[in-house]
Amino acid sequence: MTLSTDPTMAETLLADRVRTARSSEVRKVFMASQKRGVISFAGGAPYLGVLPFDRLAASARRIMAGSGAVSLQYGASQGIPELRRHVCALMELEGISADPDDIVVTSGSQQALDLAARILVNPGDVIFAEAPSYAGGLAVFTGYQAEIIHVPVDGEGLVPEELEQAIAAVQTTGRTAKGLYTIPNFQNPRGINLSAERRHQIGEICRRNGLLIFEDNPYGLLAFDGNTRRAIQPDFPDITMYFGSFSKIIAPGLRLGWVLPPAGLYSHFVNASETTLLNPPVYNQQLLCDYLDNPAWKATLDESRGLYEKKGAALVEALEQAMPAGTSWIHPTGGFYLWLTLPEGVDTGSLVFECIERGVAYVPGTAFYADGRGSNELRLSFCLPTIDEIRKGGAILGQLFREATEAGTACAAATDDRPRNHPGRPSKTS
Amino acid sequence: MTLSTDPTMAETLLADRVRTARSSEVRKVFMASQKRGVISFAGGAPYLGVLPFDRLAASARRIMAGSGAVSLQYGASQGIPELRRHVCALMELEGISADPDDIVVTSGSQQALDLAARILVNPGDVIFAEAPSYAGGLAVFTGYQAEIIHVPVDGEGLVPEELEQAIAAVQTTGRTAKGLYTIPNFQNPRGINLSAERRHQIGEICRRNGLLIFEDNPYGLLAFDGNTRRAIQPDFPDITMYFGSFSKIIAPGLRLGWVLPPAGLYSHFVNASETTLLNPPVYNQQLLCDYLDNPAWKATLDESRGLYEKKGAALVEALEQAMPAGTSWIHPTGGFYLWLTLPEGVDTGSLVFECIERGVAYVPGTAFYADGRGSNELRLSFCLPTIDEIRKGGAILGQLFREATEAGTACAAATDDRPRNHPGRPSKTS
Repeated sequence: MTLSTDPTMAETLLADRVRTARSSEVRKVFMASQKRGVISFAGGAPYLGVLPFDRLAASARRIMAGSGAVSLQYGASQGIPELRRHVCALMELEGISADPDDIVVTSGSQQALDLAARILVNPGDVIFAEAPSYAGGLAVFTGYQAEIIHVPVDGEGLVPEELEQAIAAVQTTGRTAKGLYTIPNFQNPRGINLSAERRHQIGEICRRNGLLIFEDNPYGLLAFDGNTRRAIQPDFPDITMYFGSFSKIIAPGLRLGWVLPPAGLYSHFVNASETTLLNPPVYNQQLLCDYLDNPAWKATLDESRGLYEKKGAALVEALEQAMPAGTSWIHPTGGFYLWLTLPEGVDTGSLVFECIERGVAYVPGTAFYADGRGSNELRLSFCLPTIDEIRKGGAILGQLFREATEAGTACAAATDDRPRNHPGRPSKTS
Repeated sequence: MTLSTDPTMAETLLADRVRTARSSEVRKVFMASQKRGVISFAGGAPYLGVLPFDRLAASARRIMAGSGAVSLQYGASQGIPELRRHVCALMELEGISADPDDIVVTSGSQQALDLAARILVNPGDVIFAEAPSYAGGLAVFTGYQAEIIHVPVDGEGLVPEELEQAIAAVQTTGRTAKGLYTIPNFQNPRGINLSAERRHQIGEICRRNGLLIFEDNPYGLLAFDGNTRRAIQPDFPDITMYFGSFSKIIAPGLRLGWVLPPAGLYSHFVNASETTLLNPPVYNQQLLCDYLDNPAWKATLDESRGLYEKKGAALVEALEQAMPAGTSWIHPTGGFYLWLTLPEGVDTGSLVFECIERGVAYVPGTAFYADGRGSNELRLSFCLPTIDEIRKGGAILGQLFREATEAGTACAAATDDRPRNHPGRPSKTS
């Protein structure tokens, strides 16, 4: 971290797992994008304006006044039973049949992912993941020194034949593959759904090869057509650990998610959660239960979904008007994200700070690959900004990338085999 | 975990760090002790009856109604600036001078400890710790496959000469020692304070040997005489990471603590916290800030402290009346715990479930050693039960251990070299 100066005494003692971790370029983007007035397509943040804050405020008061000595005390490592019951009811919508005693409530599904990697990953183990995939998920696995092997995707999600080939390639090297990390619904960052047929094929491939499936599903209830897909877990419960989150469907600030582990792993999750955190906050769990007790929460979710659909459409319309020729994107049908591919040679990583200077933030594509790919790709998150901001932001993006494309075309070699980060290409970054 | 049956497919894929972790006997005790009517001296839980729940309830409502869209959104990985300012003001009481930008707010100091171990411990590294020490701290380090080497303590805490000898012994084996994990104030589980002179000596020893100090301080503001000790950190800031917690001085349920790392480690803590949790809950931080904004919180803390002093005295009185000859304990002068040593041969681990059957829970001494010691010791936490419960619980403990001592004496061999867990010794467990 301090290449230009001598390391401090403490730095000389760092563990290997930290030395091999790549530093977070994404954080720099987030920090820069927090400047006042910047339209941010960067973070995966939901729009919270639809929440009934007065009702939540009344609940918060009632719970604290009525059960404060429980709410503010230590609690069960696996979470309170009431919330685990709500989790089971939610998962039923996706075909999952689970008992509350099978659930571990966590401080966001991020903690659940971290616990899974902690429990299962030895240094050097292989984890397969979609190409591209959630940056925070990749960071979890690489944090335990796993090697991520990306598997190609198409319009129906992860390609089963490609997964089989990737597994075979790893097997010939004698290394240990532990599992597949997948986001089947409205995948982060591409927004694509894994088709029902492929869910089955991929489950069979994993089972046949002794691989676990890390099924990460924050966006399953955010289909714009309201059609909730069947999860992988119910058909492959012996090999699937299912990760759920309240962050995208209700609010991230309570920091509550959960994991449904396969047989044999439950006590390991509880142990690991206790060691790393003791327990998720009881008050937050009570507040969430109270919110879920009132069926009105589903109407609020419908409202969010309707709003996100409109925002996604507004973003597509803005991009259609503004982006240079040779740009492509996937039309969102749910979830939070639009994935955008620019012409080869446009480096979204070097352009992002210039873009923020002009008032718009996005996440460069390289954040979503463990292997350095994605330099001409980027992710736009359309849920948080207003429709006006989306239109304005889309126009600014278009202007920037038109300029970059023209500059790139002007100096690019006639052949296509130039390096992606051509040092001679004029850069728009200051 | 399932030695009696075949491992599940998922279990066959467990990571080495989980296979080497010892399963938590302590959790079984906690679970058993949650039976209605059991007087629990087991958990390190504060008494929350002194908290102004109506005021907290009003704050909870006001914050949610006024800033819900911020309170329930993602937040900064290092915590909100207002809380980091409060943390700095708190640490000033212990002689620590820090900037809010030096602080990382965590989900309890347990998370901060876990991040420290994650950042610094390679498998096989040595961590020194008091003998005995906090079970949850030991679990953090062993979870990253550190070897804990316990250093003897006396009435002034860790013995510097013993630390030097332990360091020298590790150096001759060529292994890497990373640091000393210490709880200088009202140490968990012995309740002893490290003397001012020894803080200095130990700091010098660590600095001279290139060791970090993990200074864990949940109890520093809980001296019964109101005399707050100077921390180690201000005199050894280059090698000390200081861990603070609101759990014991205000309430554990918000799950908020912090770390002040030495130079060079800050960004590693932020990265690791983001990867494992994203951020601590903003709403909880706001609620805590609002509580700390009103200076009345200090009077509430004084009230707790006075109450804990009375409870500690009641426990000592009960033990004096009830415990068998040959039992010794340390009179608490602050903090949460009383450490009790029974005659050799009394196995507190095998007696604890019988004790819970009779209505009283404690934590067996072996939980506080990484090396199997402590079978005739136990920890009593006196803050949560009422004074009546403490008297009643003390009498039950006395009765049980008088019986055990008599039974032990009756069957013990005349020599002292019998195994501590003598299989022939009558057991009181069912």
